[in-house]
Amino acid sequence: MDIQIIITDIDGVWTDGGMYYTESGDEYKKFNTSDSVGVILAKAAGIKLIIMTGEESNCVKNRAKKLNIDSCYLGVKDKLKLSKEIASKEGVSLQQIAFIGDEINDHKLLKEAGFSACPQSAPEYTKKIVSFVVPSDGGKGAFRDFVFEILRRKNIFEDLFDQLTNPEDTEITI
Amino acid sequence: MDIQIIITDIDGVWTDGGMYYTESGDEYKKFNTSDSVGVILAKAAGIKLIIMTGEESNCVKNRAKKLNIDSCYLGVKDKLKLSKEIASKEGVSLQQIAFIGDEINDHKLLKEAGFSACPQSAPEYTKKIVSFVVPSDGGKGAFRDFVFEILRRKNIFEDLFDQLTNPEDTEITI
Amino acid sequence: MDIQIIITDIDGVWTDGGMYYTESGDEYKKFNTSDSVGVILAKAAGIKLIIMTGEESNCVKNRAKKLNIDSCYLGVKDKLKLSKEIASKEGVSLQQIAFIGDEINDHKLLKEAGFSACPQSAPEYTKKIVSFVVPSDGGKGAFRDFVFEILRRKNIFEDLFDQLTNPEDTEITI
Amino acid sequence: MDIQIIITDIDGVWTDGGMYYTESGDEYKKFNTSDSVGVILAKAAGIKLIIMTGEESNCVKNRAKKLNIDSCYLGVKDKLKLSKEIASKEGVSLQQIAFIGDEINDHKLLKEAGFSACPQSAPEYTKKIVSFVVPSDGGKGAFRDFVFEILRRKNIFEDLFDQLTNPEDTEITI
Repeated sequence: MDIQIIITDIDGVWTDGGMYYTESGDEYKKFNTSDSVGVILAKAAGIKLIIMTGEESNCVKNRAKKLNIDSCYLGVKDKLKLSKEIASKEGVSLQQIAFIGDEINDHKLLKEAGFSACPQSAPEYTKKIVSFVVPSDGGKGAFRDFVFEILRRKNIFEDLFDQLTNPEDTEITI
Repeated sequence: MDIQIIITDIDGVWTDGGMYYTESGDEYKKFNTSDSVGVILAKAAGIKLIIMTGEESNCVKNRAKKLNIDSCYLGVKDKLKLSKEIASKEGVSLQQIAFIGDEINDHKLLKEAGFSACPQSAPEYTKKIVSFVVPSDGGKGAFRDFVFEILRRKNIFEDLFDQLTNPEDTEITI
Repeated sequence: MDIQIIITDIDGVWTDGGMYYTESGDEYKKFNTSDSVGVILAKAAGIKLIIMTGEESNCVKNRAKKLNIDSCYLGVKDKLKLSKEIASKEGVSLQQIAFIGDEINDHKLLKEAGFSACPQSAPEYTKKIVSFVVPSDGGKGAFRDFVFEILRRKNIFEDLFDQLTNPEDTEITI
Repeated sequence: MDIQIIITDIDGVWTDGGMYYTESGDEYKKFNTSDSVGVILAKAAGIKLIIMTGEESNCVKNRAKKLNIDSCYLGVKDKLKLSKEIASKEGVSLQQIAFIGDEINDHKLLKEAGFSACPQSAPEYTKKIVSFVVPSDGGKGAFRDFVFEILRRKNIFEDLFDQLTNPEDTEITI
């Protein structure tokens, strides 16, 4: 499997789809620490990470910044079109792009990406069009599990995992 | 099925019933991005959308505004009475109104609306009086699934869905 | 069943036990709209309602105020002792008091109250000492279900419920 | 079992891994009141409590302060290395330290601690390397259950529990 870029939706994937609105006018989202493990392993494997969401939200930008995500596109109307532009700029094909999303506005890109996935909590109409349904729900490690699956198919998961979890290895920490 | 207007409760339908209170005096609710898909499809089908809740809350108004909901009634004491007034003003009958709610204060309208529903997470005493129990829980896509069911019964769901998810179609985006 | 006063714990009963802490120093809790139905029915039945919690929190006071709860005791160290004082002041016995709680600090009062209950989500060591385990989890309607059970055992539930949900009855609204 | 110190991870153990980000730039976590019961019993048994997390967050410090936790280490890169330093300073061996964690960055210490555990909600790759999988999920009492298990193995659980829950005992309250 030759995946060079991982693109990820946010709402319903990094979250359970929840959007919190306060009386005083603030908004927020609930992310999950488990997905940061996915970010660390994808980076260790040299895969470029891109966030792509239809929403305009600062909190996604803040989360992306904390995790050192390569690029973060907000307010995207057509994810397939933007992904084609990115592929062209990066000199890769859509076949070398992996995408995880959950809702109707993700369908076009899910159908065209080289490897596509959705969380266990995604609607049935999304589950039936993707390459792989990850074992976790959105907001419960779905992105981490998506990265793990890609690394497994690249046959590099075990080595990376062992490096990070071996008590004898005092150099590498996460 | 001749539904012209969809009326929806908020707490327990667009949310899991949760009401967050902060020490500093703020309040908020947790909505779900999936329900915005329901709003988009209902609007594409030309159905009028109305929010009706017994609570007084700004955050509902803010969510309604973001999704371009047609009308938003807060602090409603008698939902059946208000719905009759709306029906009269709009020149439709109660039979042409669909309503989704979950609790005791929704019962009168649930019993009189042309098509009634509640989330999977609603109490048993509500489940047994509605036309349809949607497959999702409140705050987990219950409103989206309610709209989908209405569009299916109108035989227009498949066409709308295909339009929005076909990679060949570069004009329509959601 | 001659219950005159209902005393309720908050954390783990009106909530799932969650305590939210913000970086900026605020705290909050997540209540559920369903429990307000319990408050309304208990009041309609003339039962006095008392909140009793070991925590000191403004948000509980705010929630109590919104629902017109009769009394709200915060920072309580010994719930059994305080309940005996209340019983004495109100001229009732502990047998006429119903109490719902979930954790170890509720055990003494749970063992002495006339009718005791805990949510479905309470630990096993609490479930086995109460008169009744309500069908709902804490923060998911446990208090509502506790009130319903008391009204059922008083044989007044059906009448109250019918009054509130009959479309023919245009006088009573909740 | 000779455990002198309990070290605990926070995200995924005291929480469900959720990390809330607001649009206005605040962050927060959801703790659970049940874990405070674990803190009380561990202290009653004379065991030292230490929080150790890779995150830098004020809200953990605030929660630790409220519960009178002995020490709280934030932003820890290598938990095994720090635990060895603590063991040395406290004059105990790693065999006298119990640790509960859930993710990859906890693995080195989980493998070396005298007694190790993870929540029911931890990933499979963590469940298979620990001494004990607690019955509760992270953020749902996992830390409380971890303390209970240690006290049971020390044969002091029943006595402590009875003291705290006996209505005849008017001196001890929690």
